[in-house]
Amino acid sequence: MFTDEYYMKMALQEAQVALEKDEVPVGCVIVSNNRVIAKAHNLTETLNDVTAHAEMQAITSAANFMGGKYLRNCTMYVTLEPCIMCCGALNWSQISKVVIGARDEQRGFINKNLSLHPKTEIVLDVLEAKCSQIVKDFFQNKR
Amino acid sequence: MFTDEYYMKMALQEAQVALEKDEVPVGCVIVSNNRVIAKAHNLTETLNDVTAHAEMQAITSAANFMGGKYLRNCTMYVTLEPCIMCCGALNWSQISKVVIGARDEQRGFINKNLSLHPKTEIVLDVLEAKCSQIVKDFFQNKR
Repeated sequence: MFTDEYYMKMALQEAQVALEKDEVPVGCVIVSNNRVIAKAHNLTETLNDVTAHAEMQAITSAANFMGGKYLRNCTMYVTLEPCIMCCGALNWSQISKVVIGARDEQRGFINKNLSLHPKTEIVLDVLEAKCSQIVKDFFQNKR
Repeated sequence: MFTDEYYMKMALQEAQVALEKDEVPVGCVIVSNNRVIAKAHNLTETLNDVTAHAEMQAITSAANFMGGKYLRNCTMYVTLEPCIMCCGALNWSQISKVVIGARDEQRGFINKNLSLHPKTEIVLDVLEAKCSQIVKDFFQNKR
């Protein structure tokens, strides 16, 4: 039951909430011991704040739940590949695992030759089609 | 009067406040039209939050003051070279100018081959000696 797909679906639900707010639809959950300890979606427009990416909010929220700034034994599920900012935050957090839905060739950290923390396992392409479609549809509708 | 040194001294005062809280002493101010619109210091330990770097807080706070997420006509003065996370946030903000006190060869964005937004002017080494000394002293005392 508690598969990567299961939690990525929850992240996609968060992306859907962002979409309903006319935000770039990216969603994220953080899980520890099969328990969801943080959920967030992109709120940069709503909050007028470039730092309000789903991942940033989820990292703050998970650290608050854990009572410490390191996200050991935690896995982030995020619908879109993190940007440089979120990559940097994930590095500082030393999170155990990051599961990514769709790649972001332009803005994502991978094509910038950045990496996550040596302790962090990365899994790509989980529910890739759905995760990329929601973003593509959003930008198509904007044109 | 309103020189880069003038505002960097204010950023150093913020770093001093961080030091008194036993935080890595980094301080930051954001100025628009010679008016200080945000001040912040590193609070990662106090808040148990890796995202609570001085720059991140100042960006959020300045955007709040400006009523918009883009920091046009704004200059950030920061005592230590921003990390990857803060570099990413500065990129999204399209801030006009970033004035840096001391370099951070290990953790700073410059040696990671990252750059700020094409619209962003960068000035280095303003009050470099004082800005680097406060960090060196902090880590020396930790050993």
